[in-house]
Amino acid sequence: MKSVVIHAPRDLRIEERPISPPAAGEVQVAMAAGGICGSDLHYYQHGGFGAIKLREPMVLGHEVSGHITALGEGVSGLDVGQLVAVSPSRPCANCKFCLAGQPNHCLNMRFYGSAMPFPHIQGAFRQVLNAEASQCVVADGLTAGEAAMAEPLAVCLHAVAQAGLLLGKTVLVTGCGPIGVLTILAARRAGADHIVATDMSDFTLQKAREAGADVTFNVSKVDTPLQPYMADKGAFDVQFECSGAVSALTAGIHAMRPGGTIVQLGLSGDMSLPMMAITAKELNLKGSFRFHDEFATGVSLMQKGLIDVAPYITKTFPMSDAVEAFELAADRSRAMKTQIDFA
Amino acid sequence: MKSVVIHAPRDLRIEERPISPPAAGEVQVAMAAGGICGSDLHYYQHGGFGAIKLREPMVLGHEVSGHITALGEGVSGLDVGQLVAVSPSRPCANCKFCLAGQPNHCLNMRFYGSAMPFPHIQGAFRQVLNAEASQCVVADGLTAGEAAMAEPLAVCLHAVAQAGLLLGKTVLVTGCGPIGVLTILAARRAGADHIVATDMSDFTLQKAREAGADVTFNVSKVDTPLQPYMADKGAFDVQFECSGAVSALTAGIHAMRPGGTIVQLGLSGDMSLPMMAITAKELNLKGSFRFHDEFATGVSLMQKGLIDVAPYITKTFPMSDAVEAFELAADRSRAMKTQIDFA
Amino acid sequence: MKSVVIHAPRDLRIEERPISPPAAGEVQVAMAAGGICGSDLHYYQHGGFGAIKLREPMVLGHEVSGHITALGEGVSGLDVGQLVAVSPSRPCANCKFCLAGQPNHCLNMRFYGSAMPFPHIQGAFRQVLNAEASQCVVADGLTAGEAAMAEPLAVCLHAVAQAGLLLGKTVLVTGCGPIGVLTILAARRAGADHIVATDMSDFTLQKAREAGADVTFNVSKVDTPLQPYMADKGAFDVQFECSGAVSALTAGIHAMRPGGTIVQLGLSGDMSLPMMAITAKELNLKGSFRFHDEFATGVSLMQKGLIDVAPYITKTFPMSDAVEAFELAADRSRAMKTQIDFA
Amino acid sequence: MKSVVIHAPRDLRIEERPISPPAAGEVQVAMAAGGICGSDLHYYQHGGFGAIKLREPMVLGHEVSGHITALGEGVSGLDVGQLVAVSPSRPCANCKFCLAGQPNHCLNMRFYGSAMPFPHIQGAFRQVLNAEASQCVVADGLTAGEAAMAEPLAVCLHAVAQAGLLLGKTVLVTGCGPIGVLTILAARRAGADHIVATDMSDFTLQKAREAGADVTFNVSKVDTPLQPYMADKGAFDVQFECSGAVSALTAGIHAMRPGGTIVQLGLSGDMSLPMMAITAKELNLKGSFRFHDEFATGVSLMQKGLIDVAPYITKTFPMSDAVEAFELAADRSRAMKTQIDFA
Repeated sequence: MKSVVIHAPRDLRIEERPISPPAAGEVQVAMAAGGICGSDLHYYQHGGFGAIKLREPMVLGHEVSGHITALGEGVSGLDVGQLVAVSPSRPCANCKFCLAGQPNHCLNMRFYGSAMPFPHIQGAFRQVLNAEASQCVVADGLTAGEAAMAEPLAVCLHAVAQAGLLLGKTVLVTGCGPIGVLTILAARRAGADHIVATDMSDFTLQKAREAGADVTFNVSKVDTPLQPYMADKGAFDVQFECSGAVSALTAGIHAMRPGGTIVQLGLSGDMSLPMMAITAKELNLKGSFRFHDEFATGVSLMQKGLIDVAPYITKTFPMSDAVEAFELAADRSRAMKTQIDFA
Repeated sequence: MKSVVIHAPRDLRIEERPISPPAAGEVQVAMAAGGICGSDLHYYQHGGFGAIKLREPMVLGHEVSGHITALGEGVSGLDVGQLVAVSPSRPCANCKFCLAGQPNHCLNMRFYGSAMPFPHIQGAFRQVLNAEASQCVVADGLTAGEAAMAEPLAVCLHAVAQAGLLLGKTVLVTGCGPIGVLTILAARRAGADHIVATDMSDFTLQKAREAGADVTFNVSKVDTPLQPYMADKGAFDVQFECSGAVSALTAGIHAMRPGGTIVQLGLSGDMSLPMMAITAKELNLKGSFRFHDEFATGVSLMQKGLIDVAPYITKTFPMSDAVEAFELAADRSRAMKTQIDFA
Repeated sequence: MKSVVIHAPRDLRIEERPISPPAAGEVQVAMAAGGICGSDLHYYQHGGFGAIKLREPMVLGHEVSGHITALGEGVSGLDVGQLVAVSPSRPCANCKFCLAGQPNHCLNMRFYGSAMPFPHIQGAFRQVLNAEASQCVVADGLTAGEAAMAEPLAVCLHAVAQAGLLLGKTVLVTGCGPIGVLTILAARRAGADHIVATDMSDFTLQKAREAGADVTFNVSKVDTPLQPYMADKGAFDVQFECSGAVSALTAGIHAMRPGGTIVQLGLSGDMSLPMMAITAKELNLKGSFRFHDEFATGVSLMQKGLIDVAPYITKTFPMSDAVEAFELAADRSRAMKTQIDFA
Repeated sequence: MKSVVIHAPRDLRIEERPISPPAAGEVQVAMAAGGICGSDLHYYQHGGFGAIKLREPMVLGHEVSGHITALGEGVSGLDVGQLVAVSPSRPCANCKFCLAGQPNHCLNMRFYGSAMPFPHIQGAFRQVLNAEASQCVVADGLTAGEAAMAEPLAVCLHAVAQAGLLLGKTVLVTGCGPIGVLTILAARRAGADHIVATDMSDFTLQKAREAGADVTFNVSKVDTPLQPYMADKGAFDVQFECSGAVSALTAGIHAMRPGGTIVQLGLSGDMSLPMMAITAKELNLKGSFRFHDEFATGVSLMQKGLIDVAPYITKTFPMSDAVEAFELAADRSRAMKTQIDFA
């Protein structure tokens, strides 16, 4: 079985790994599609990010789907041949956060393709994967590529849920890579009315408009684009900050109405923020991290045609061209989501 | 100017009323479309409902739209010729509930076509109406009939907002008259995943499916239809009770998951409820009444094509056939929304 | 070891039961105090309530405390000799509700002294109990009787939490038995401002005032006592309905402000409710059932002197006088909480 | 009539101002007590703060109480001779924020003693004040000094309300000047269980313990005091940041549990924050600014003895010693609240 292994920055290899039969409660999956995420790119480009550093070779990948080829003992409700979206999130179901309904904060999380614990948690960019039945959501009617979008979509549905009721709200989305664009789809699905999006790439802003943004601004070309918009339309109820850029968060803080909510889902280092505006306007700045039930929700919404992610899969590469796939994924002037085909 | 006046049960007359010029802050509107609501029907059939009784002739109607023909002194932001949806809700902007952001509970509310205070608040089924500029929402791009749907749609958007986050939730809608069907549209717009609807009419259930219900049950034909559904799919997160029938609310109470929310928007008299189930499952039974900001939200969502109400306007009658319009509106085996054309 | 066993209505016996050593993860407790709850009384007087019926002899009791006498294998953090409040709530930590942070809705709950599953869950009115370490909260500084109040106090803290923020709110408590009085203490602790309480017993209303009620009404003597109060002071923000009486809930519904919250924690059968008032005032009627984290919270608040339950323990009987204890517990003209001493 | 006027940094004068009779809807108040707030100190020491600068002489003061000496036309419900706490908050009751129940964000706010608009809003450190009847809350049973504490107490009650349910929660308060200490009182009143407080002054930490803090740390003496505490007791549910110091907010961010809430009420300039921790722990950072209904709530809670502010009034100076009062107020090693007596 071949897998996509990162050894060091820019050292990505296709390697053989052994196959074991599925254990009790597991299914064996012939992997079909895998999307390249920002964290995969960080490992590829820099060997990690912040305090998280590669210390041994690691199979990358956590946005994946495939077809079931075998059932382990005791598995019911799944059949050989089914296309499944495979959740990379494996909480322990035992710690205090799992028992408090916060499994995304599990103390013993084993999330695919993470260098955080050592030994690292090996990822899912591989031809064959044994997964727990509970990780698998049947994705009948979707393409393998769409099913592999369930993971980033779940991240965005979770972020949208952090904002509470969006029905009729005016929403700002800053950063229009795959997470930003899927957030626009999710916010629209959750009933947002006016959606304004910003980025520095005309390509991603075009995609943002296709996803439902009413107005977009290229902040590399216009200085403070939100002020004239607000003068006409009023302040924003909610911001989804998907860029991790301090300029984007700061612009949002100044563009919010009193009592507005900002959901930070873009990862970043330290940021210098205008606290007086946060305090005096009584803003609500919330972090959003990973997901839980939203993984199955995303599959269902895609199956019903209520969210269509297909237009945001820019290109799919064969496994042998994985390096080329990573290079394209890093170029936001040309690529939204880039996927690898493991079949 | 002609108007549609109720004098007593089944005594509906087209009568002349005088026209006055618009006062300062008002616009004059040539009325175009008016939808018949359940409360209009109650006045027509029974002269009122519960403690609310007709005591003098009253112009009916509160779901209306029209074209601006004149601007009173000091009005800006509106133009002659524009199609506007006219909100029938006129809170005082002064009482403690208005100042607490609850204008739908205004102590001095003057809602069109209400027999509650005496003298009654005259309604809007008329050829010419002087309305405050703040009641008017520009409805460019909609038909007059769609614009007149802004009022019942606002009722449903408000009810959906009472339920909090609907994204990915499993929803039960009981009662599929116009309010039930618009609630399905609104719940779908707010991100509901599975939607199940019940009613006693095959016609309305057909419309419920067109509006987005995944599954419907005719409760006049199947005894306890929700139990087999739940055995397969699990309990409901949220119920919108639009029928005012105790059997529908009771069925919902038994079909909810622990901690689920029931929004009661159908009006009714006393109901005998299984309190043990409410208590032991920690259900959340909330009333929903009228609307406020949701009126403008509904117009905007219709303009963007995010909610399409057109399929639920069954028939439009000329003003001279108002009695026939009321008779059809009362027949749920044939009619969803029935409207009158005042042009 | 002696235990208090109900065989049939009015057939309560002190019986010997065998003692086993504590299993791994358990501690052995020499029981000290046990409070008689309304459900214990229902078994004693009627053999059950509603659909829940005794089908075999059952040890009663779930409001208990005692001193640790032995530690099972692997127990840490507890010591022999410590006074512990023992939670009767034993969720499975495995089902979907446990994993959603709703353990009080556990599908496999084994709550002490419950006839609901068969074989019944035997209770804790006994001289020796083996309990899981996780059920035990160290109660240093409290009397055994106070520690045994942790359970009903937890019920009331949970109910108060259902109401959300109470700081500065105007609160109505209907029913002033032990649950009503502990709810007054809990609501006061949570920051309620004006508290009004109603009951039909002058004795319990006296206790309600001692617990912090600003005003009390004996509804067996005054017809609609809340109307004059409201005319002066305004409507209520929150009601805690602790009586299970339809008249109390109905009075509360009419006494609430628009948007107010009613928490129903008194158990009852069906009730006929004025739904028009619930709908038109957009009330929020929520059930409250049992508790979880609130058990430890209650012990901590008692230890700090922030809640004082001692004045509401009316009398403590030796185990041999258990029948007399049950008879007193049933008489609300003389008794608040009645306890049994197992030492 | 004498008043306390700031002309420039360190240039504070006692000046004569004319008295006019109370207008319709106003009462005339013989001022009794006035507390010196941090913003008064900023005007005294620096002539303003941030972008807010003195541009003309301004009467300082907004924490005040006095006795009614005359009633303007149409005033009812108040009597000559009554002690009243006078709210400095004067929203317009007309703008969109007032009508949305957010009067603390009023677009036309005229808050006593503010240099923000020009001409400045003159303050209430004066012998005679004409105030609107709606600003006055009868404070029977309190001392004038306690009544003058209603304003900072309202700020803290509002902040506590921002945090939602506090019952049983573990709370961190950073900064123990008057706002920090009143926040401890308010959090305790709202049901907080464990309260930990930090400051750099042993004097204020002593007061924090008197107000109910279970544990205090002097962060000028111990490096990272919260880590050992958390190792023993677990992370915090809620932080109230009252210092405006970036080190205090940062320490709180690292000390919070996943999903915890931080309320920022201390005013500050820009702060560099660890966004990765906010995002990955899904923290909720909320601003809190001023108050509304909490002003009357605070008076009521003090009248019932549920909050006792008296121990935190360090010293009261005659009006003639206003400069000395300001100097003491600035010294946190000796002073909690310092007040001026205008009688």
